[in-house]
Amino acid sequence: MKTELENVTPYEIEKRSMEIISQELCAIGITLDKEKEPVIKRAIHASADFDYAQNLYFSENVIQKALELLKNGTSIVTDTKMALSGINKKALSRHGIKAYNFIDDEDVAASAVWNNTTRSAACIDKAVAMDTPVIFVIGNAPTALVRIYELYNGGIFKPALVIGVPVGFVNVVQAKELIIQTGIPCIISRGRKGGSNIAAAICNALLYML
Amino acid sequence: MKTELENVTPYEIEKRSMEIISQELCAIGITLDKEKEPVIKRAIHASADFDYAQNLYFSENVIQKALELLKNGTSIVTDTKMALSGINKKALSRHGIKAYNFIDDEDVAASAVWNNTTRSAACIDKAVAMDTPVIFVIGNAPTALVRIYELYNGGIFKPALVIGVPVGFVNVVQAKELIIQTGIPCIISRGRKGGSNIAAAICNALLYML
Repeated sequence: MKTELENVTPYEIEKRSMEIISQELCAIGITLDKEKEPVIKRAIHASADFDYAQNLYFSENVIQKALELLKNGTSIVTDTKMALSGINKKALSRHGIKAYNFIDDEDVAASAVWNNTTRSAACIDKAVAMDTPVIFVIGNAPTALVRIYELYNGGIFKPALVIGVPVGFVNVVQAKELIIQTGIPCIISRGRKGGSNIAAAICNALLYML
Repeated sequence: MKTELENVTPYEIEKRSMEIISQELCAIGITLDKEKEPVIKRAIHASADFDYAQNLYFSENVIQKALELLKNGTSIVTDTKMALSGINKKALSRHGIKAYNFIDDEDVAASAVWNNTTRSAACIDKAVAMDTPVIFVIGNAPTALVRIYELYNGGIFKPALVIGVPVGFVNVVQAKELIIQTGIPCIISRGRKGGSNIAAAICNALLYML
């Protein structure tokens, strides 16, 4: 097993990593769409999992829409503190974007008990009550995606954008497909894979494209 | 694509997920060591990536050692806020364990500039200065693992345990092998894969075993 370290400065590591990802995608015969490439490569960078070259679904013109929303300072709401903590705070502040997570709020906990649902789903209702355009960044809870679907379907709320990449084995695949079917602008990791790290990585990729 | 949701309560999802992981491991002919099983399954649960059934390295008796350390309230230091935010705070407090991340500390930023290294590596020095046994939980920065190696090799500090699962393409594989070679008690994801989510998942698996 190789233990000799490559002589790169810490600050060159990301650039070199992205080059390696490009080379290996090329070697397996995958050419990425230029517009989506930064998002896909950052998901691979966050996981070292090349499945993200093929499992990410992008709704029509979603990159362009996402960049406009972020330029306009649209608020971000995440389902977990982990996703929130992975989003680059300097990039957010540079563009005057606020990012929220409500999972530890007392009213959210109470609402989850009252409605016999998860706190992640109750967070969605709290975001809707903000009465402002929202970008949802969901890396963990399929119940959050299901709640977004219900509110949209009931004509109650249409999110500006959903980055929907929960990971898991129960109701995750289905919840993602429900969002895709709505036509809401979205970036979704089809299948089981995803996670708070992937959610933050996609969000950061969009912020870095501004 | 299946969109009909399974009728499980949110609280049954984790149990059902773990059953599915067991079934699928069985189907591909993998039998896990009973002691390591909770750690491996939680890494798979966090990523939906079955590679973790085969890429996790456990030093001798490391599960038993880790559980003793946690029972004794040994402090945890992470390399990222994301890893820290993924560790279950109720489980920590139940066992009187403190978990730290120093990445945003001013002295760490200054030390990183002064020593021409990453803030993640400077965090290791700050942890060592605590002069107490430390469990390192590293999900992102190979430079943090390299710093742990240097300090150990120089006879300056021996960590109680290293959960070393950074993800990446440059110096990640090598940094992990360096730690394995030291003989420090460790759990390491060999190869490129890992991440803050995997680091937190392994830490939580150990906490839940107490």
